[in-house]
Amino acid sequence: MPDQLSRTFAALADPTRRAMLARLAQGKANVSDLAEPFLDKMSRPALTKHVKVLEKAGLIRKKRDAQRRPCELKPEALKDAAEWMEQYRAFWEESFDRLDEYLKTVTAEKKAKGKKNAGQS
Amino acid sequence: MPDQLSRTFAALADPTRRAMLARLAQGKANVSDLAEPFLDKMSRPALTKHVKVLEKAGLIRKKRDAQRRPCELKPEALKDAAEWMEQYRAFWEESFDRLDEYLKTVTAEKKAKGKKNAGQS
Repeated sequence: MPDQLSRTFAALADPTRRAMLARLAQGKANVSDLAEPFLDKMSRPALTKHVKVLEKAGLIRKKRDAQRRPCELKPEALKDAAEWMEQYRAFWEESFDRLDEYLKTVTAEKKAKGKKNAGQS
Repeated sequence: MPDQLSRTFAALADPTRRAMLARLAQGKANVSDLAEPFLDKMSRPALTKHVKVLEKAGLIRKKRDAQRRPCELKPEALKDAAEWMEQYRAFWEESFDRLDEYLKTVTAEKKAKGKKNAGQS
């Protein structure tokens, strides 16, 4: 049995499942609503399976709502995954600072060169 | 061929690979350094494969450094994954606000009850 964080990331490692989460971010939806946009590319059982993966990973839950069972986002697992990512924020911020610095140097060099060429013409 | 975001999440869906990233957050390391803490539980080829998954997902890169090829973090893919997560931040913040409110109510009720009981004794 994989740990919770591994199950969350595995569930997110699929564009159809991420699109289903994006749909649920707009509001509750039934399994058939979630499947609908993909029926031209995938079978209904395959899509139901995607919903089940999201449910097992704790990313969505089915509510009892009279006869219907609409799905809704369950954001706790996403929060834990986002918190795990946060510890690496310093790394990408640093690397983008370096890129930014590099681009400034290149732009400054280009401008200096442009002025030099303009002076020559 | 899965999309980049799917490859990133799939690579993160394993505790050994996440531990290897945590090791690289401390500084560059060779494949053998990355494998070392897990050799009691896993074979060297299995560990080399984990490193390759991280490399293929673009989460780490091997540097040419004279004869050695140390690995280092490549934070861009993590950044993209974290940005994808950010769009759901409102959901978990809202749900934790609701939890917070609930806890405040429960605590207030307990306090009121405690005072009542203290008055009775």
